Amino acid sequence: MNKIFNYGLIGYSGRLGSEVKNLFNEKGHQLVFTSDLDGEKETGKAQVVIDCSLPEAFENNVKIVKRLNAPLIIAVTGLSENQINTLKKLAGKVPVVQSFNFSIGIQILLKLTETASKLLDGWDVEITETHHRMKKDKPSGTAKMIKEIFSDKNVNVSSRRVGGVPGDHSVIFGGMGETLEITHHAISRRTFAEGILKSAEFVINKQNGFYSFKDVVLNN
Amino acid sequence: MNKIFNYGLIGYSGRLGSEVKNLFNEKGHQLVFTSDLDGEKETGKAQVVIDCSLPEAFENNVKIVKRLNAPLIIAVTGLSENQINTLKKLAGKVPVVQSFNFSIGIQILLKLTETASKLLDGWDVEITETHHRMKKDKPSGTAKMIKEIFSDKNVNVSSRRVGGVPGDHSVIFGGMGETLEITHHAISRRTFAEGILKSAEFVINKQNGFYSFKDVVLNN
Amino acid sequence: MNKIFNYGLIGYSGRLGSEVKNLFNEKGHQLVFTSDLDGEKETGKAQVVIDCSLPEAFENNVKIVKRLNAPLIIAVTGLSENQINTLKKLAGKVPVVQSFNFSIGIQILLKLTETASKLLDGWDVEITETHHRMKKDKPSGTAKMIKEIFSDKNVNVSSRRVGGVPGDHSVIFGGMGETLEITHHAISRRTFAEGILKSAEFVINKQNGFYSFKDVVLNN
Amino acid sequence: MNKIFNYGLIGYSGRLGSEVKNLFNEKGHQLVFTSDLDGEKETGKAQVVIDCSLPEAFENNVKIVKRLNAPLIIAVTGLSENQINTLKKLAGKVPVVQSFNFSIGIQILLKLTETASKLLDGWDVEITETHHRMKKDKPSGTAKMIKEIFSDKNVNVSSRRVGGVPGDHSVIFGGMGETLEITHHAISRRTFAEGILKSAEFVINKQNGFYSFKDVVLNN
Repeated sequence: MNKIFNYGLIGYSGRLGSEVKNLFNEKGHQLVFTSDLDGEKETGKAQVVIDCSLPEAFENNVKIVKRLNAPLIIAVTGLSENQINTLKKLAGKVPVVQSFNFSIGIQILLKLTETASKLLDGWDVEITETHHRMKKDKPSGTAKMIKEIFSDKNVNVSSRRVGGVPGDHSVIFGGMGETLEITHHAISRRTFAEGILKSAEFVINKQNGFYSFKDVVLNN
Repeated sequence: MNKIFNYGLIGYSGRLGSEVKNLFNEKGHQLVFTSDLDGEKETGKAQVVIDCSLPEAFENNVKIVKRLNAPLIIAVTGLSENQINTLKKLAGKVPVVQSFNFSIGIQILLKLTETASKLLDGWDVEITETHHRMKKDKPSGTAKMIKEIFSDKNVNVSSRRVGGVPGDHSVIFGGMGETLEITHHAISRRTFAEGILKSAEFVINKQNGFYSFKDVVLNN
Repeated sequence: MNKIFNYGLIGYSGRLGSEVKNLFNEKGHQLVFTSDLDGEKETGKAQVVIDCSLPEAFENNVKIVKRLNAPLIIAVTGLSENQINTLKKLAGKVPVVQSFNFSIGIQILLKLTETASKLLDGWDVEITETHHRMKKDKPSGTAKMIKEIFSDKNVNVSSRRVGGVPGDHSVIFGGMGETLEITHHAISRRTFAEGILKSAEFVINKQNGFYSFKDVVLNN
Repeated sequence: MNKIFNYGLIGYSGRLGSEVKNLFNEKGHQLVFTSDLDGEKETGKAQVVIDCSLPEAFENNVKIVKRLNAPLIIAVTGLSENQINTLKKLAGKVPVVQSFNFSIGIQILLKLTETASKLLDGWDVEITETHHRMKKDKPSGTAKMIKEIFSDKNVNVSSRRVGGVPGDHSVIFGGMGETLEITHHAISRRTFAEGILKSAEFVINKQNGFYSFKDVVLNN
């Protein structure tokens, strides 16, 4: 798992791209291919390609991945259904990991919530999410994912917007004599870079196929 | 402050009345007068009278207090404005402590929130309250009291209803690089009995006048 | 599951026994046998027997259970290894549920912590427990049970003792960019009575055997 | 308060110095003087000087401040008593703000804790601090500052070390029927840059004198 590898990075100058570059560099992995608004640069054979760019660059990036013929991890948000379908086809040629949220902890929170929801049948549930004041959508996409676990009841979501909080999510289960709460707290964007690193380690020796980040975390 | 005293208790068989009786008994104070649906019983001269009954018994209870000529602590909820005015007149004859919430911690939370609101000018604020599933009003009366501190802005209140939670309240202040949160957690109704005990110790040697529980807690 | 049943209660006048009686009564179950310091009383055939007494009464209580020939739920704390072995033999004649902690939420917390510990390999872990000032042992027995899950590393436990807190336990997992926390909060002893009720519903139609409360919660 | 000013920055290339430069730049303030390992650069008259460097550079930096004749904000940690005394003398010539912690929220937490400690006399107290795994000292300096408020009793401090947590501090007060908790959570180092900005706004028109960050926050 700790083997050094060569990687390519599309969208290396954005916020997430920079975090990925810093973390991978820290671990000793070699950046051998980059693509951004200022063009491409290739100095070696990439064993895996990370896409942290925008949906607008999608078509061009698919061409790049085909040409490099390397596994892809795509962390682009806001992809259309068509673009997801294109990725599923691409997954016949190279292994692809796609997710809108590369936080490991959120995947675990989802899994634990699923388990608890089955065992605490009949308990009340409340979801709370807290984010920075700039976040306009309520509730957060992640809170919606949590809510979907409780398909049989309409769980209330409380949304709080204060200061510069990167993102907290909590699910509380309440019985008459006790409560159980599962809370996720994001410290910084580094957490997403860590999820992408874990995905790279996962995908490098995988067979062609379309993988979610849940596959990476739970079947590792 | 730890002197033993004789006390009277109106509404001694209700939930709060029972808690008061247990706590006062534990501390060695002597119950020398009771009044409830089953009539009155007097075995000594009360130095202070506690009213834990209902608004319906108000007029009769005022007569009792006048007759006993002892300081009154009244913890009856849902009093009308007229009834409050009657109490203010009564306060010319005996010291009266009146409040809808005898939790010491809530008074401190209110005071700390006031202080923080002045010093953290410009920070975002969110209030959260969590109560048992039987509580139907949203937000709680206490949450409304907290919200009133921020008269110049419309602070959002999140209400959660789960299981048997007696009552939690929190105020979070958020800046871009940090948050500050003040949280009150009620363990049981005993907390209100403790506030009434503190009020009894406060009022026994006070001059006639109308006091709030805030006076008891902050000017003690 | 909501069928009414007849039950026996040993140690009915203690703190836990009283809670059990209140809850079972509320649900409509019939108390047909009691045994306490003041002797036995039988008014019908018990379908299940609950033992909330002390280790000193153990031998006599085993005789009672054999005579009544009914499933046993034993919530006595501080049983010796010999006494546990006696129970295991008894389990050849009637179904027996034995546990030192009948909180449903704690069982779920243990299970979720086990799951998370496998998936969050390499993250740091801290356990925190908060209890009332009268609790002298540090850390709590439940904190020790949580700690045992991490057999491969020495997890730190922080113990806090304040006021009248019935009992809170939390496990925090920390990565470089995020944390995940699982927190259990006991509201009152009623939670243990609920666990015993769940055990009664579980055991009434079970085959002879020795069951833990974990069996009740997870295999229900 | 929102007037644009010219400022000097000593130690501009360090972690805190970079944060200060970014925040001040964002607000429109002009960097007209810098000093670092690579020498000095002056392009205008500084109205205030910020020192984010190390104790080793102290003597030279005092000379710089005297020459520039501008108010000083010094955020250098680990200053000796002698160096503090030198600053107090310097405060006869220019206003000086000195602190080891420029978090606004921590100052408020200290003040609120002081208030609560007086009003909640007799309640139990516990302090908890959580920091990243790299932090070796236990407890944190800030936890020690909180502990000092309770000069009359020996308050327990729990220290937790997990992952990449920048720094959380909490004080819990516990009575028999309720708890009150004050919690500070640092999101990032930006919070310290904000405290330094607030200090700059405070000091620009102040008379000569030696000020703490507490003066800045509370007497603003």
